[in-house]
Formats: sequence, structure tokens, C-alpha cells
Amino acid sequence: MNQDGRKRVYIFHVTPVIDGGRFPIKRIVGEELTVEADLVADGHDVVQGRLGWRILPNRPWSYVPLQPLDNDRYRAVFPLTEIGLYEYRIEGWVDEFLTWRYRLVKKWALGQDIDAELLMGRELIWQRIALYAKGPKSKSDEVVEALETLRRLLHRFDETSEKEQRLLLMQDPQLEQMMRKLPDLQHAGQSRRFPVRVDRIRAGFSAWYEFFPRSCPTRKNGHGTLRDCEEFLPYIADLGFDVVYLPPIHPIGLQHRKGANNQTVASPDDPGSPWAIGNEEGGHMAIHPQLGTLTDFDHFHQTLRALGLELAMDLTFQCSPDHPWVKEHPQWFRHFPDGTIQYAENPPKKYEDVFPLNFDTPDWQDLWNALLDITQFWAERGVRIFRVDNPHTKPLVFWEWFITQMQSRFPDTIFLSEAFTRPKLMEALSKVGFTQSYTYFAWRNTAQELRDYVSELFFTEKNQYFRPNFWPNTPDILPGFLQTDRPAAFTVRFILAATLSPNYGIYGPAYELLEHQPLSWGSEEYDHSEKYEIRHWNLSQQPNIQDVIKKVNAIRHQELALQHNGILTFHHVDNPQLLVYSKRDPAYHSRLLMVVNLDPVFTQSGWTALDMNALGLHEDAHYVVHDLLTGARYAWNGPYNYVELHPDGYNAHILRIEEGI
Amino acid sequence: MNQDGRKRVYIFHVTPVIDGGRFPIKRIVGEELTVEADLVADGHDVVQGRLGWRILPNRPWSYVPLQPLDNDRYRAVFPLTEIGLYEYRIEGWVDEFLTWRYRLVKKWALGQDIDAELLMGRELIWQRIALYAKGPKSKSDEVVEALETLRRLLHRFDETSEKEQRLLLMQDPQLEQMMRKLPDLQHAGQSRRFPVRVDRIRAGFSAWYEFFPRSCPTRKNGHGTLRDCEEFLPYIADLGFDVVYLPPIHPIGLQHRKGANNQTVASPDDPGSPWAIGNEEGGHMAIHPQLGTLTDFDHFHQTLRALGLELAMDLTFQCSPDHPWVKEHPQWFRHFPDGTIQYAENPPKKYEDVFPLNFDTPDWQDLWNALLDITQFWAERGVRIFRVDNPHTKPLVFWEWFITQMQSRFPDTIFLSEAFTRPKLMEALSKVGFTQSYTYFAWRNTAQELRDYVSELFFTEKNQYFRPNFWPNTPDILPGFLQTDRPAAFTVRFILAATLSPNYGIYGPAYELLEHQPLSWGSEEYDHSEKYEIRHWNLSQQPNIQDVIKKVNAIRHQELALQHNGILTFHHVDNPQLLVYSKRDPAYHSRLLMVVNLDPVFTQSGWTALDMNALGLHEDAHYVVHDLLTGARYAWNGPYNYVELHPDGYNAHILRIEEGI
Repeated sequence: MNQDGRKRVYIFHVTPVIDGGRFPIKRIVGEELTVEADLVADGHDVVQGRLGWRILPNRPWSYVPLQPLDNDRYRAVFPLTEIGLYEYRIEGWVDEFLTWRYRLVKKWALGQDIDAELLMGRELIWQRIALYAKGPKSKSDEVVEALETLRRLLHRFDETSEKEQRLLLMQDPQLEQMMRKLPDLQHAGQSRRFPVRVDRIRAGFSAWYEFFPRSCPTRKNGHGTLRDCEEFLPYIADLGFDVVYLPPIHPIGLQHRKGANNQTVASPDDPGSPWAIGNEEGGHMAIHPQLGTLTDFDHFHQTLRALGLELAMDLTFQCSPDHPWVKEHPQWFRHFPDGTIQYAENPPKKYEDVFPLNFDTPDWQDLWNALLDITQFWAERGVRIFRVDNPHTKPLVFWEWFITQMQSRFPDTIFLSEAFTRPKLMEALSKVGFTQSYTYFAWRNTAQELRDYVSELFFTEKNQYFRPNFWPNTPDILPGFLQTDRPAAFTVRFILAATLSPNYGIYGPAYELLEHQPLSWGSEEYDHSEKYEIRHWNLSQQPNIQDVIKKVNAIRHQELALQHNGILTFHHVDNPQLLVYSKRDPAYHSRLLMVVNLDPVFTQSGWTALDMNALGLHEDAHYVVHDLLTGARYAWNGPYNYVELHPDGYNAHILRIEEGI
Repeated sequence: MNQDGRKRVYIFHVTPVIDGGRFPIKRIVGEELTVEADLVADGHDVVQGRLGWRILPNRPWSYVPLQPLDNDRYRAVFPLTEIGLYEYRIEGWVDEFLTWRYRLVKKWALGQDIDAELLMGRELIWQRIALYAKGPKSKSDEVVEALETLRRLLHRFDETSEKEQRLLLMQDPQLEQMMRKLPDLQHAGQSRRFPVRVDRIRAGFSAWYEFFPRSCPTRKNGHGTLRDCEEFLPYIADLGFDVVYLPPIHPIGLQHRKGANNQTVASPDDPGSPWAIGNEEGGHMAIHPQLGTLTDFDHFHQTLRALGLELAMDLTFQCSPDHPWVKEHPQWFRHFPDGTIQYAENPPKKYEDVFPLNFDTPDWQDLWNALLDITQFWAERGVRIFRVDNPHTKPLVFWEWFITQMQSRFPDTIFLSEAFTRPKLMEALSKVGFTQSYTYFAWRNTAQELRDYVSELFFTEKNQYFRPNFWPNTPDILPGFLQTDRPAAFTVRFILAATLSPNYGIYGPAYELLEHQPLSWGSEEYDHSEKYEIRHWNLSQQPNIQDVIKKVNAIRHQELALQHNGILTFHHVDNPQLLVYSKRDPAYHSRLLMVVNLDPVFTQSGWTALDMNALGLHEDAHYVVHDLLTGARYAWNGPYNYVELHPDGYNAHILRIEEGI
């Protein structure tokens, strides 16, 4: 027989929840979480409910009452004030006292006899006093006060036999208040517990700059060092970025080292791919000697932080054939029966310079711990952002454990998933813990593609756990759209990334210097890719798009609208080469309207049909739009306005809506 | 650390599931269940999966392989061959052997060296043999045969050193077949287990006829008996109904007995409400003496079954003040402090003749068992359908236990929920176990209202657990639409109920004899309601709608289309007074197009715009529609056809689509 047959409230459809609570939803510290649920009880009795929440593993529960909406739905809000893992649950119960009082008042109003009802009410109050009086001896002041007040009320009730007097007493607001303070939860129904991962602000708002330290532009020749890089950092800070991401900085393998343009034979001068990690000088905890020492690293890191920047390190869980683990832990690699180790491959592609780790090894527990050790080593040095290389080729079950372990010791750690794979696998990586994720943005070019993809990311359940990070390029991806020398192409893709998504990044200086030559026709590989050779960049090269980058990053920091992914609206425009969208903060303090010409060659113009409601404007409003890129101001009326954009200019408007000016 | 770090497959979004598997979905025996799930593993390895199912509590598991769809989604189907509670789950794993063979073939096709790969394949087969060879000593014939075949293949592999020979052996279809028979499930990921309630056919397809046995029309005066009723049953069978539902047949209380038209004072001749159950002659296990004895009941039940009908009894869990329980179990009722018992009320309504049961009693376990005893008493006499009165005023937690108990002992039991309450509560009652439910159909009159409501019931997740039973009237509900003497009103509502929903019922003879006088203007109560007095019906009274009832029930039994709620389509018509919809079986053997004139006063006509695809017809098809009500045949072309319906006729078409005639 059921444990407790008096739990009359059932709880359904709690939101927001993903996968029935198997994985946490994600939020940013400082936000509030609005929870809703259906509380369903038999009959017409008064249902009460509360939301309980706490910070895991074992902080005390806090509670807030549920407010009724319509149709048996209830809502409560609680604040997310700390970084970490929360859980929440819903409780619901039938409030016998309020049910009784509702009936009492109704009967009185109908002129029915209420003598027996009054006595029943007295009994209910008395029972509630008894329930709390028999509890633990040390009671909170609040409980003691409530008990005292209820006893006083009962005393006054007993002192009179006047029906009207008693009725008035029973309707005393203080009575209801005290009874609510001492709820009878003996038969409360409870939902499951639902987890919420709360990350720091940078998890939800960040501009990333990736560069190869060995190609540091402040070094005119040879292999750049971390000391050289310190001199490059002010340039990145000046452009307005928040996060500096370095590809692996560890020693690089010699066996099967790749030559320039991914040739299978390297010349003695070729530096090799930084992702072929490890040689006799060390593995994942070592610094490449030509970059410097651990001391140099700490110094570089210090300088970087002093500029207001944050470092993101690379986590690539694989080894070159020269990595110390190959000899120390041969069981962590997959061996052919002839004893040779299987290198990475995806036929016809071969990565002879890389041995993947074999997560199917019976020794998986030691392997997992070793990978955790590596990462904690860098976290202990203060690194709190990790860009994880190819997480989709390592088991989800590993990541779920690994990220939980890392974040329980270093709660402010951010992991960016570098997975460009099947959509369900990318989503699963986010569910098991990745803070941010690369996306298909690099391959979404037309207005329809962008609208569809952004809607899927921001307007569906994915928004609960998948935090997009938009990259127009990476060292692996030079999209066809950018295989041109037209600055407008680079400007457009940059503005889209930086204004559609609160998290975005570029791989520079290739991006801002308009590097656009592919390895071959139809390839997305860069010619003379920095993955395989050292490049010497000229930051003063013309044309470049440093100016627009600087402006847009400044706007991002000024305008709340661009700091969240929540309130985005696409607007109609009668030219499919134009994309029009707005973002705003919840209070409408910051309202931006972006008009982007997706055509990097020709001038495009059109008439907008703005969703005025989404902009917080009346249908026939007169307002000023202030272009934050050019400084120009335009007087607009209502939803229909003319726009015209030229590839020779910014090819985009970032319009601040300014009323009453 | 995680239990098993080598479970690489995660399982998401299993369908069909409600509330994460907390409650069973519902199906009908003989159907198949199609299950889908996302199986997501890292990398590009070959994923295999299977669906396991079994009948609870402890029958053995059966398995069927999952078939891949696109985008990491998989599907399998299993048959529901028995009535009862099933559970199913999904398992998924990485198939190392198939992954290896895919790579082998690809490398061979690319001309790469495969010597090491061939040896690795040998190793994988050997490991699989070892896995199963070490298992239990008594192996199934299938396993023994597979092991033998694999050993033979390995022997042939070792006998040759020719690369091509070995490659051919590894591609032998028998090898794959045997490896699939011996899957390596050591690291299979598993979903939760999801329940499925499988009911008998009548749960999904039934026409109900409710009547008051004391007003049995075969008795010309006085109180009808069950013997009298036996003579009435052939009339019901002839009309084509399946289920006969009797309001309570137990002794009726005397204290506060209601008089005619719900008057608070009864005259000595007033029979009282059958729902005020119990007096000194007995309670819920007794038969009202004026109806007969238990022997009479069994005889009546026998006669009813011999006519191909099935009996539905009423379960009303409340007591008259004279019910034996009031003295025997006073703790099951709610007492005022002055000792009086609280009667049922919903101010300003008072039901002084009824004491509700107090499910909040500390003695709830005994109460629950007593209610189960009552029901099992009737189930032991062969009753398998119960219409439950006001289930929404008893706790959900009780019903969940009660129905589970009943159905575990009597798996073919059907419970109809008589709840006309808040939508979430009606849905919750279905989730916790009710087989069928009354609906808001009686108050959905216009084409838009009917389309919206039917779509909500049949085209949403509700269809997984909520089985509607459409009643155009009940003893409590004479809808405004039927407060007219026009037969067309009764015909239209009857045809809608009987063709929109596979389960429907009427309260007769009031319905077919067009009883339409309300107690007062604006009331939905019948004047001289049978709830409070005995009525003597004249079945030959004119006008009546016996003819259309008989025809429609016959069509329901002939046409598969009307026996399921699955494949319903609304079609466009250019007159809002007309409702056009089609139903069909999955194989298109039975295709019916209903055209209903919702206006009972005026002739209405219009042009259809049929969804030809939904009818299984080409856009420009020439076809014949055969009106099963009138026998008329019409030659129709394509989607646009003229229809005209007259309130003097059936006011509806039930058109069978007949091609090539």
C-alpha cells in the first residue's frame, strides 16, 4: 500500500527542466530562476505550494511560496546568487485551514448557519499549534512568535460567544499570516529534484581572441616566445576582447611530425602541429621550451590579467608518439596485435603524428584521473577557462565525470566544447557539462539560414543548456564566404557573430588582416596554415577591420542588449539580402536594432516592417535611431523605414533606439 | 567515480513516454507499439541498440533490434499481445566489431595496408567467443550454433595467409549475423523503464447506453425491477449498443431523502436519489430490494451477456446518512466538534442526503481496503466495467492505488471517470489509471469549438493516456443545444459523438425520445429528472431518433475507421455551419467522410476543399461517395464538391469513399 495515502497534491510539468532532471539547466549568476508547475489536487480545496532550493552538495534549503496562475498552474522565482550547482523542487499540499475559512465566509454570506463551522475552525488552529508545539524544543523566534499569536487568538475566541466576534477573529489577517508561517507539511507532495548549473558572468558573455603564440606578431622572425606575446597583449586588449585563447603550448612530438601545409614529411625546421602533444621534454603539464618556462607562463598570465583579459588554455586529450605516456602507460592506447599503436585516422584522413587515447581500456579509471590531474595542474596556476579540442571523440560519460569533478573543486571553471559534429552529439556534450559550445554558425550565411539556426539555438529548449559561441573562422575553418579579399565579407560575418550571440570569437590576426587564401579550391584549410608553420603578421597591413572590431566590442560592453541571448527578435525586411534583428534587455534600457547587408559586393536597400511591440514602441511612434558605428542619427516613424547599406562602409547598422530625442 | 566509464552510448528523448515514465501510456491489445529514441555516442563508431520489453510483474524480457533513422534517431516496434501492464526500455552500445569492419573495408577500398587490421578483427572475434564461452554452462541452441560458426570461421581465417581470402572471410554475411547474435552488452547504456498499460478492445471502442432500472420502460407503472429490465435489454441490443450502464442499484437512504426535482423534503412515495447509497438494508454490496435480489442481479447480468451486451456498474464512493458504515466506521466521515457529520456541499449547493467519505482520516488504509472489497465483490460476480462517480472529489493517490490493485487481479477491468472538472484534474485522473474519461464534448457546439477540442484530445500528447468518451447528455446534463423539440438537434449531437470518438454514450430513453424540458430557464437539469423520481417512457413515442441510432451503431461495427481514434482529419468547407471530417484505418480499407450540419433549423450547403492525401486519393481523383445513412451514391471529383444538408433528413452524411466503382 502506498506510503502515505494522504498526499493529495500531484505535481506535473515542472519547468524549466531538461530530460526529466537528468541533466542541469544552465543559468548565469545574478539571474533569477522562474519555476512553474501544475499542482493538482482532488476537489475544490485550497492548494498551497512552495519552491525549495539549495546549493549542492549540502547547503540548507530555502523556500518561497508558489503563486497561483490560472488552470492549476503555479509559479515562484528564486535568486541565483552564487556560482555552483543548485537543485530545486516543488512541494504542494491541501491547506485545510484556508479551505475551511473559504467555506465559512461563503456560508456566512449566504446566511447559512456557521456555529459548527466556527468550532471546526478553532479545532484546526488548535491542531496546528499542537503540531508545532510538539516539535524540537529549540524553536526559531518566528515559530515561537507565531505559536504565541495563535494561542492569543484562540484565547480571545474562547472569551466571547458572539458569533460575529468569532467570525471577525477568524478573518483576522494576522491569523492567516501565522497559519501560513506554520504550514502543515505532513502530507505535502514533492516533485523530483531538478539541477541548475549556475556559471559566472563570463560564461554567458565573452569575446574570444585566438592566436598562435609562436607566430606572435611582435616578433619579426623565428619562434615567438611567451615573453614576446606579453607585448602583443595590449593590442588584443585595445581591440576590446575578453578572453585570449592559446592553442596547445606543450612540447611537440617529432615522430611523423607534419610539415608545412600538412605534408607528411617535415623538414628539420618545421615546428609541427601544436596538437601533437608531448615529447621527451614533457607532456600536457610541460611548456614548449621554445615558448619558455613555467615561470614565463606565469609571468605572461600575470600580464594578461593585468590588462583585464582572461586566459583560455587548450585541452587536447591525445598524444604524439613521443609523449611520455606512450611508454609509461601503453595500456591507454589501442594496439594492433603486432604491437603497433593505432594512430588517429578517419579514412582517408590520417593523423600519423597523433595517438588517440583508448577510453575503452580496462585501465580507464587511471586514465581519467591522469586527465583530471593535468587539468587541475593548470587550474592550480589560476587558469579557469579551457577550450576542449574534439570532445566528441571522447566518451560523454568521461566528460560528465570530468567536468563535475573540476567544477566541484573550481566552481568558476568554463569549458568550451570544440565539437563540429552531429547535432545530437553536440547537444549531448552540452548536457553533460560543457559551459559553451562551438556551433555551425561558420556555415550559416543567408538570411533564412541565420534566422532558422539562431531561432533553433535561442528560441527552443536548447536555450536551457546549449550556450553557443559563434566563430566566423578558426584555424581549421576558412569558410567559403571569407575566401575573398573584400573587407565587407569579414565585417559582415564579424558583426553577425558579435551581435547575434553574446559569446563569440575570432582566430586572429588572420581574421582582422583578411587572410583568405585556401589551401586549394574547395578546401576550408588556410594556405600556409599556422597549424604547421610559423607566420609573421604585419598588424599595420591594409586593408584590415581592426576599427570595426574595436567599435563593436565597445558597443557590446556598453549595451546590456548584447550581453544576453534572451530577448532577440527578427524583423521583416523586403530584401532577402538584408537581415534585420533587434536585441534588448528585460527593462528596455538598451534596445539595439541591427541591419546587416549579407551581400559583401553590392549595395542593398529595402523597407523594414518592424515588430514595434518587440522594440517597446507604439505602432505609430516617432523615434530616433542612433547608429553606434557611424554616429549618425535618423528620425524614424513607425515600422516602415528605408535602409540602404554599402559594402564600402560598415555594411551594417547597429542602431540604438532613442525615444523622445 | 562513475560505475562504468565504458558506457559510451547515451539515450535521449525516448517516445512515447508521459511524465518521464512516471505514468503508463495507454494502448489496446493487438496494436503494435512504435518506440523511438536518440542514441548518442562519441566519435564515428557504429552504434547498435535494442528495445527490450516485458509484461509486468515478472515475465521474461523480449528484445528487438533498433533500426537507425537519420540524425542519431532509432526505432523499433513490438507487439502488444496481452492485456496488462508492460514495460519497455532502450539499450545502446558501441559495436566494436562492426566499427572495425567498416574501417577495414574503407581502408581496403582506398588501397591502404590492412594486414594489422585483419589481425585486429581476428582478435575481436576471438574475444567475443571467449565472452560467451565463459557464460552459463547451459547455453541456448542459438548461442551454441553461433559460437560453433564463429570458431569455424576463425579456423578458416588461420588456415590461409592470403590477404584477399581473409578479407572475404571477414565480409562473410554469416559472420556479421553470428556476431549480432552474440552482442557484447558489457558496456551497454540503458534508458529508464517506461510503462505501457494495455487494455482490451472495448476500452478503445464502445457505445454506452445508460438507463435507470427503476424507470424500466417495459413496466407500465410502479418501481421497475431487474426482472422487468431483462425485457428491456433486447431494445438496447437492437439499437446496437455495447455497454449498458446502470446508475447505483443499492438501497437508498431515508434521512434527508430528496423529493421530485431535488426538493429538500420528500414525500413517502419519493424513491430518492440512487446516489444516496445505503440504508439498514445494506450498503454498496447490497441490491435495492425493490429492484430485486442478488440472484435477480445475476440473472439479469446473464441475460444481458447473452445478448452480446456488457454491464457497467456504478461506483459512487459516498454514503447516505443511513449507510451501515456511518455507525460501523464513524472515523471515515468528517465530524464537526459538536459531533454532527458534515454532509456534502459546495455552497450554495447542499447535498444533505449524502455524507462524503473523509479520505484524510488517519484510518485511510482501512477505508481504502473497504472500497477495494466492495469493487472486488462485484468483479467476482463478473462485472468488468465501472463508471466511477465524481472521482475528482477523491484523492488521486487513492485512485492510483485502487486501479492498480483492481487491474492486477482483474486485468480486463475498465474504469470510466465521470469527472467534469478542471482540465488538469481530468487529465491527472487519466494518468493515474482511469481507462476512459467523460469530456467537455456536451458543451462544444460550433465547428471551431469541435475542431479545437477534438484536436486537443486526439492530436496532442493527451492521446497517449486520455481516452475520451463522448456523451451528448447525461442525467446531470441537458445541454442548451438539446433544449428543443427538433429531432435534428438530437441527431446531430448523436452523430458527432458516435463518429468523432470511438467511445461514446447516451442517457436513454430520454435521449432517443427527445426529452428536452429543463428544470428552469438556464438550467441544465432535466425537469422531472429520473434522479429523483420514477418515469414511465413510451418507446413508441414520435418523433424519436431510434432509426439513426441503429444505423450509426451498425456503421460503427462495420467500419474499422470508426473503431480507433488515430487517423482523423478535418477538411475545409466554406460554410461554418458545416463540419467535415474523415476517419480511416491505417490500411485505407475503411475511409469515411462525415459532413454534419450543425444547424438544426435551416438547410445549409457549401463547397468542400478536401485534403485528398488524407483520404488516400489523388488530387484529381474521380470517386464515388456512398452515404451509409441514406444509401445514396454520389460521383465526386477532386477536393471540391457540393454538399447540402436538411434538418428534416439525417442532417448529416456518413460517406464511404469507394474508388473505381
